[in-house]
Amino acid sequence: MRGLMMDTPLTIGSIARHVELYHGEREIVSVTADAPPVRTCWRDCMRRARRVANAMQTLGAKPGDTVATLAWNDHRHLEIYYGLSGAGYVCHTINPRLFAEQIVFIVNHAADRWIFIDSMFVPLIEKLKGQLDGVEGFIVMTDEAHMPDSSLDGLLCYETLLADASAELDWPEFDENTAAALCYTSGTTGDPKGVLYSHRSTVLHAYASVAPDALDLRSRDNVLPVVPLFHVNAWGIPYSAAMVGAKLVLPGPKMGDGKTLCHLIRSEEVSIALGVPTVWSALLQYCDDAAQTLDRLERTVIGGAAVPRSMVQAFRDRHDVVVIQGWGMTEMSPLGTVNTLKAGLEGLSPDDKLDLATKAGRAMFGCELRIVDDEGRELPRDGVAFGALQVRGPWVCNDYYKLEGSAGTHTHDGWFETGDVATIDPEGYVAITDRTKDVIKSGGEWISSIELENTAVGHESVAEAAVIGVPHPKWSERPLLIVVPAPGAEPDKSELLAWFDGKVASWWIPNDVAFVDELPHTATGKIKKIELRRQFADYAFPHE
Amino acid sequence: MRGLMMDTPLTIGSIARHVELYHGEREIVSVTADAPPVRTCWRDCMRRARRVANAMQTLGAKPGDTVATLAWNDHRHLEIYYGLSGAGYVCHTINPRLFAEQIVFIVNHAADRWIFIDSMFVPLIEKLKGQLDGVEGFIVMTDEAHMPDSSLDGLLCYETLLADASAELDWPEFDENTAAALCYTSGTTGDPKGVLYSHRSTVLHAYASVAPDALDLRSRDNVLPVVPLFHVNAWGIPYSAAMVGAKLVLPGPKMGDGKTLCHLIRSEEVSIALGVPTVWSALLQYCDDAAQTLDRLERTVIGGAAVPRSMVQAFRDRHDVVVIQGWGMTEMSPLGTVNTLKAGLEGLSPDDKLDLATKAGRAMFGCELRIVDDEGRELPRDGVAFGALQVRGPWVCNDYYKLEGSAGTHTHDGWFETGDVATIDPEGYVAITDRTKDVIKSGGEWISSIELENTAVGHESVAEAAVIGVPHPKWSERPLLIVVPAPGAEPDKSELLAWFDGKVASWWIPNDVAFVDELPHTATGKIKKIELRRQFADYAFPHE
Repeated sequence: MRGLMMDTPLTIGSIARHVELYHGEREIVSVTADAPPVRTCWRDCMRRARRVANAMQTLGAKPGDTVATLAWNDHRHLEIYYGLSGAGYVCHTINPRLFAEQIVFIVNHAADRWIFIDSMFVPLIEKLKGQLDGVEGFIVMTDEAHMPDSSLDGLLCYETLLADASAELDWPEFDENTAAALCYTSGTTGDPKGVLYSHRSTVLHAYASVAPDALDLRSRDNVLPVVPLFHVNAWGIPYSAAMVGAKLVLPGPKMGDGKTLCHLIRSEEVSIALGVPTVWSALLQYCDDAAQTLDRLERTVIGGAAVPRSMVQAFRDRHDVVVIQGWGMTEMSPLGTVNTLKAGLEGLSPDDKLDLATKAGRAMFGCELRIVDDEGRELPRDGVAFGALQVRGPWVCNDYYKLEGSAGTHTHDGWFETGDVATIDPEGYVAITDRTKDVIKSGGEWISSIELENTAVGHESVAEAAVIGVPHPKWSERPLLIVVPAPGAEPDKSELLAWFDGKVASWWIPNDVAFVDELPHTATGKIKKIELRRQFADYAFPHE
Repeated sequence: MRGLMMDTPLTIGSIARHVELYHGEREIVSVTADAPPVRTCWRDCMRRARRVANAMQTLGAKPGDTVATLAWNDHRHLEIYYGLSGAGYVCHTINPRLFAEQIVFIVNHAADRWIFIDSMFVPLIEKLKGQLDGVEGFIVMTDEAHMPDSSLDGLLCYETLLADASAELDWPEFDENTAAALCYTSGTTGDPKGVLYSHRSTVLHAYASVAPDALDLRSRDNVLPVVPLFHVNAWGIPYSAAMVGAKLVLPGPKMGDGKTLCHLIRSEEVSIALGVPTVWSALLQYCDDAAQTLDRLERTVIGGAAVPRSMVQAFRDRHDVVVIQGWGMTEMSPLGTVNTLKAGLEGLSPDDKLDLATKAGRAMFGCELRIVDDEGRELPRDGVAFGALQVRGPWVCNDYYKLEGSAGTHTHDGWFETGDVATIDPEGYVAITDRTKDVIKSGGEWISSIELENTAVGHESVAEAAVIGVPHPKWSERPLLIVVPAPGAEPDKSELLAWFDGKVASWWIPNDVAFVDELPHTATGKIKKIELRRQFADYAFPHE
């Protein structure tokens, strides 16, 4: 028997209507790529979003068309979000930091018909133009006065396009499962894969995000997303902030600039800021150097990489700011866990609270989590057992765009394999311990490469360490410790291996140590394990 | 184009799973109808809920069957909620305070196959048994030791039924639009009408309810719902509290007992309590008489009737408790508006904040509101214009049970007519000014009966006042003021009418005054306008 409630679809247009009606005057402050900071508001944002929607129709766009953006976090990018998705187009955000060939692949794979670009990316597009077959036009996000000289034909001016379009539009209603946004995730191997968000997934993710035990967003918050709008929709902030009518502070291209961030936080009375650890390192460093405090800032939400305990402590002790760690993925809209305090844990010591804060957090209602072993059997939530982390829920991807059924990332019973290895403690807090591809599989049991690395760097003679699995005739794989010695130190193999005694299970202790001058790193500072495995492809353990 | 996100249904079973896994130890403290207070927890609640589900299957229940409850707020009633809805049955809560003939009508109309009853209602059921044709059994919510003597055949004992049932069950997945719960609303005329909630509407309402700008519920909250579980699912608290893992404090049959409530709030460290104004009057009175404070209580959510300014003030000044007014209806799950402070209003004076707090609140995202005139034209949101309040959204009813299409409560464009008359101010705050059936329609314009009544009682000679519309040859209707004089006072008609000068628009001033010894009231203290209109059916205005 069906209930007798209204069949009202959950759409991004309904968020647009709500924020315009109830929080129209609430400010949006934006650093821009082409001009001084702009102060606008949600009402103006939605008026201009309707112009974007109408302009697209004039250009010939049809519902379901993918339209791309290549831009930083500013008010125009936000308008485009709503203008495209609200009207039934798919807003495809592209990371401008990708390799040129990846951008070409993504644009062609998504079959983008138009691309909105910040003026600074015109030279990039000039280089790629010949390879972007299906793109009918480029819209430069600036006004006529700032239009760049370009060799490109038919470059459109954003402000002119908007001025020529009507601001009249009733956000259309359609099936809530309609595609709303597209974001490609680029792994270390293979082509980027597209995650196609729906209106439903976006709205449900926003509902879950604003909850007190998640981001705790309310109308009175002033929110600074330092995470890019091209990175999983800036963690959904454009939707969650609008849902509650918060003030938005957008840093434009000034993402990693500690001074700009500090200034924005202070002058705009930011109460909550969100970003990856490197951003906060830059901010904390600037604050130290310039002897600045962070005023009204109450909390920083940090995700994208593990948060060092020292960073949690620095925010707490020097700025009275609570760090809320979050964990998620592009495939998860992105939020899966948020680290907020549960009832019963208020009495933890400051030190225990710090330890807890370095975990990835606990599940939001709507995102189910489990850890499983190699055979897919669920493992206990005891904080000790670690296994492959799987998730499911209405804002988790079911498939990749145009790869339906072939990605091999979902279990037969409908869970998504995150590729992360984790523990879940009895309170439900998740700690990410490894990537499934980096974990060492020894005699049917798993050894965490990250835990071994963390133990190794605790030794005074070790500057940096990596652990990889190396094939072993008896145990299938055994750990090899690879060490960059500390300056001037000449560590001894047996001394280093003895260091693990009593710190990890005895069967976890690496079989050997190799010394190198440096480790290969990704652009974001992570160790390139793939590269290391290539380097040590011919390595064999000494005969035992 | 459809998005590629998981098609995970929003079900009450998924809330059950979540709270058991992440907040299993969190307490549920319950005053009971048959025994001393019981301390249990969410894990036990869900274990027992699974026993309820399995017991129903053993009894022969089929998915979609309606099963009723006639009970107060205790842990067993909560288990039954989840055991029934979670397993795909429809949990039909009946208000035991209804007239016997209404209960008979409701049970038969819903075709309830079983009824769970508190022992105190056995005598009531004994009287009605002969008329409850389709009911196959009554389950008394107690153990064998407390089973009442009864003339009824086949009375089942709840605890025995549970002991005999397995606690093993995977909450089933099904279409989220499946019916989950049924609640009848009894208007002043006609038969009660059933609102059939779905799993989807229940989960979305819970998501919206826990938001910081709504009820602001988190794991650390200790929640006391004084609103009955048979009244619109206790405003959804069984679901929203479980969604966040809050502690629940259930007052059993002790709803209106100020002493019990005060004791529960203090001993269980209640942080948020919810109920109708009369409940809080009793509590405040008890606190005054017994010189008690309300300790950790931070906020009371008040709905069901207008909240007097003095009550907001008493909570604030004497107990440092914030009153959050809410407005909704059985047809709305029930929440439509919640009165929390928007950004920009923090600076209001204490007095202005009090004024604001007496409004019904502002829309939660997901519930759209509008006011319209007689022709259905939308009226401005200026805080002055008042019109019929209409709502729509995924937790608003689309129809009544077994009355599909015939209730006449929905507009052709899909909005529900609440029957309330309201203003909406530019900030979006709604103030309920009247019921559509009580508003006076004079020359095509509306006059608020409530505003005239409030003005009248400001006069020292008036103990109580009511205003009704009386047919008028020229204006269609004109207001008649009906007054109960204050003790010893002998107010004069023209003096009373002059009292309105300058206080309301001149054309609002009543055409005449009638004096009566008393006004007819409902059980909850509201003036029975229908009865009054009957009394004055033959009244005609003096010749002008």
